[in-house]
Amino acid sequence: MSQIRSGRGSRSSYNRLLARLARVYNLRAVSSLLHYDAETFMPRAGISLRGEQSGQLMAEAHKLFASPRTRKLIDHAKAELVGTDSDSDAAHIVRLCELDYEEATRLPAKFVALQAKTRSLAKPAWATARAQNAFDVFQPHLEQLFAQAKRNADYVGYTDHPYDALLQRFERGTSTEQLRSLLSSLKDRLVPLIQRVKEQAAVDDSCLQQEFPVDKQEVFCQELVRGLGLSADRSRLDRSVHPFTSGISSPYDVRLTTRYMPERIRGSILATIHEAGHALFELGKNPEHARTPMIGMPSMGLHESQSRLWENHVGRSLEFWTHWYPRLQELFPQQLQNVSLQTFHRAFTKVSPSLIRVEADELMYNLHIILRFELEVALVEGTLKFADLPQAWNERFEQLFGVIPDTHAVGVLQDIHWAMGHIGYFPTYTLGNLMAAQIWEAALKQLPSLPQQITEGRYGDLNEWLRVNIHQHGRKYTTTELITRITGGPLSTDAFVRHLENRYLNA
Amino acid sequence: MSQIRSGRGSRSSYNRLLARLARVYNLRAVSSLLHYDAETFMPRAGISLRGEQSGQLMAEAHKLFASPRTRKLIDHAKAELVGTDSDSDAAHIVRLCELDYEEATRLPAKFVALQAKTRSLAKPAWATARAQNAFDVFQPHLEQLFAQAKRNADYVGYTDHPYDALLQRFERGTSTEQLRSLLSSLKDRLVPLIQRVKEQAAVDDSCLQQEFPVDKQEVFCQELVRGLGLSADRSRLDRSVHPFTSGISSPYDVRLTTRYMPERIRGSILATIHEAGHALFELGKNPEHARTPMIGMPSMGLHESQSRLWENHVGRSLEFWTHWYPRLQELFPQQLQNVSLQTFHRAFTKVSPSLIRVEADELMYNLHIILRFELEVALVEGTLKFADLPQAWNERFEQLFGVIPDTHAVGVLQDIHWAMGHIGYFPTYTLGNLMAAQIWEAALKQLPSLPQQITEGRYGDLNEWLRVNIHQHGRKYTTTELITRITGGPLSTDAFVRHLENRYLNA
Repeated sequence: MSQIRSGRGSRSSYNRLLARLARVYNLRAVSSLLHYDAETFMPRAGISLRGEQSGQLMAEAHKLFASPRTRKLIDHAKAELVGTDSDSDAAHIVRLCELDYEEATRLPAKFVALQAKTRSLAKPAWATARAQNAFDVFQPHLEQLFAQAKRNADYVGYTDHPYDALLQRFERGTSTEQLRSLLSSLKDRLVPLIQRVKEQAAVDDSCLQQEFPVDKQEVFCQELVRGLGLSADRSRLDRSVHPFTSGISSPYDVRLTTRYMPERIRGSILATIHEAGHALFELGKNPEHARTPMIGMPSMGLHESQSRLWENHVGRSLEFWTHWYPRLQELFPQQLQNVSLQTFHRAFTKVSPSLIRVEADELMYNLHIILRFELEVALVEGTLKFADLPQAWNERFEQLFGVIPDTHAVGVLQDIHWAMGHIGYFPTYTLGNLMAAQIWEAALKQLPSLPQQITEGRYGDLNEWLRVNIHQHGRKYTTTELITRITGGPLSTDAFVRHLENRYLNA
Repeated sequence: MSQIRSGRGSRSSYNRLLARLARVYNLRAVSSLLHYDAETFMPRAGISLRGEQSGQLMAEAHKLFASPRTRKLIDHAKAELVGTDSDSDAAHIVRLCELDYEEATRLPAKFVALQAKTRSLAKPAWATARAQNAFDVFQPHLEQLFAQAKRNADYVGYTDHPYDALLQRFERGTSTEQLRSLLSSLKDRLVPLIQRVKEQAAVDDSCLQQEFPVDKQEVFCQELVRGLGLSADRSRLDRSVHPFTSGISSPYDVRLTTRYMPERIRGSILATIHEAGHALFELGKNPEHARTPMIGMPSMGLHESQSRLWENHVGRSLEFWTHWYPRLQELFPQQLQNVSLQTFHRAFTKVSPSLIRVEADELMYNLHIILRFELEVALVEGTLKFADLPQAWNERFEQLFGVIPDTHAVGVLQDIHWAMGHIGYFPTYTLGNLMAAQIWEAALKQLPSLPQQITEGRYGDLNEWLRVNIHQHGRKYTTTELITRITGGPLSTDAFVRHLENRYLNA
């Protein structure tokens, strides 16, 4: 951990602040472990006490961090740093710490408790509504969640649009206006592209429509994550119902999970590569930043860019499968011995409209996000009534995909995000896709032999490039700063659309 | 959790005490999970921050519990309980809480910190000493550890012998004098018994001297723990270097571990059954006692009695293998298909002297404990010099087993206990063996069809009997009270010696 000399000996306010932060981050690490354990190994009945255990630790971490004592240490540390290098780690740590402190103390405690209560009631209501295909069961909760989101925006403050304030939680520095222009440009380019792809000959993916025993899928995915560069000393892959990555004690202890379904091997492999991308970000962080605000990420979108880079640009490429397909055939001779690499790869990258976001392919995926973004903004603005949401969903879905969901369960009720109070979160997925494509082009430019290396199963140069250019900085730069440093310009849809055209339009 | 009515409404001091205890026990549960995770799943590098995470939580739990506020709540709760049933759960909870509070606050904080430091230095010194077979590397640490143990005894107080005070940490209510008489009686009966067994024809255990692949050992042990009655909803079996059981959130979430070695299937199976016995104790506790002092155990010896009952009386019996051996043969046809049940069972229960305590069979095991007990007491009394300990070890070892250890690594340096400051712990293993035999006789008397049930793989009656008579009480009764309630008399060596004679002397 970075320490600075102080006129008053080694226990400067800055060092005292670091010690306090270490205690806060210890509690957060333990909370992450409790969550990870609950999703992977915990016997079912453990849940009866786990909620309180987690709640107590999170409350303790918040109390410790959001106390006036922290504010005082920040102020004293700032004073100590006057005249020192403003680009030092210490300077960045104190700056980010102050940002976090302001965020942590901006909302009144009563409102935070109210939000927590609303969310804890909304989650089961959403599950019931989805199971019963009954939107009205969820509607009153949704109204409360959005009302609280607007109050939240008022506390945070904004100039142009309340949605701006909501975005800050997930994508600091991005505005509604920027997003609108980026996403509408993307929609304008995606819709005709998808049309052209549809007019091409249909892809036969029957080789993937077979049963692949999960134990062997797991063998493959375990080898895969090690092959991609996840060190066994510092990471592990487990199973859970929903795949996730947890930087428990980044960069020393990073855990990722995936799921295996016999009839969906593509989904299992892509989820594993996706989470491996997240995990490589956590593993690439600077150990000296452990337990300081520097260890975080500039935004959700940037973290997502790392998972999407590996998933879309590496994992769906022919080069990738040139190396890995023989091993997959070896594990599944009955299913794949008579399937050529080309046939397998075409099947693996087959595009087809899906009602469900998490099952969408990389061509269609962002339309799902655009739909949600437009509806979220309309709900925040009040231009769409909550009672009209299901109909609005279905109408827009038909415009974008040409079909209407049979049920709300596979329509407006499919995602848990709103029930968790995550309003303003969905766009980060698309930002991740766009950033991934732009970063990938920059990497290719500097490492022209990357495609060749990937056909050989070598990822060392790519990992090192990502570590040096992105991972090691943690939260030092904003997303915009980082994207500009790496790619030479602001984020646009160009690289992503080029990537899709290259992959999905026949020559 | 048990609550009582209070004249001042529902927030009586007793209820406030319960709420405080719940927070303390939440922190302890999380600490247990951190330990379990570190021993099972944690990537190696996770250790760099895990120590501090655990330390912080343990310190927090201690601070919360040992604060004057707890003392005040205990006093007020006691006052509230005056005139109520002195045998109620509430009365026992407050009584045990006061006992724990006194124990937690008896030692000055400075001395506790000094002890912790001494132990943290002693552990690596012990490991080095063992690796280099150099007792003198460990000797200064051992002297410090024993000196602190004596200071500890002074703080705790005692009338007859400082070792009495040390025993209280692990085996409340047992005195050095009682132990001396019990163990010397045991030695007097064991030595000639072992002599008689030695004179019998040697047992051929070549069927166990084969390689048994660990994956199939694991399949067997996983089925075994479920078969013994460990619910999958509330428990799980994992692998670790040293087998252990952790009641993370007893009785809702109990984890046990074992280890598998291809050339030692007997050890793997016995360790699994042993830990299953500990786990069944945790699972049998009363859910209403969760997060109160009632959820604990009266003593280490009593907990050990449950693991030994399953290991010695169930797992080593011919009845047990009548049911399980066909499954083992099915998993290991190559190794076992031509080995009869009787041949296998004789091999499985073969006795032979071992230098190492943890590898000893049930006939020899307690001699290892008697040796350690006698040396510990002599060191505490000062009648044995530390520099003379290795020689004293070897001399007594030769008297008891007829051989001298080749090295100190497999002699006086084999156990980690002293390095951890566990002085007065070893006797609890033998107490566990004695109690197990006496409890087993009582169970057999009340459930005469037990042997028949065990040949059929049915353990429901046994589990229910143990739950009702032992597990559900948690820490309500002392070990002596419990043994007398169940077996009708005080602990003696009779049942255990009868058991050994029945099993190991040919008819």
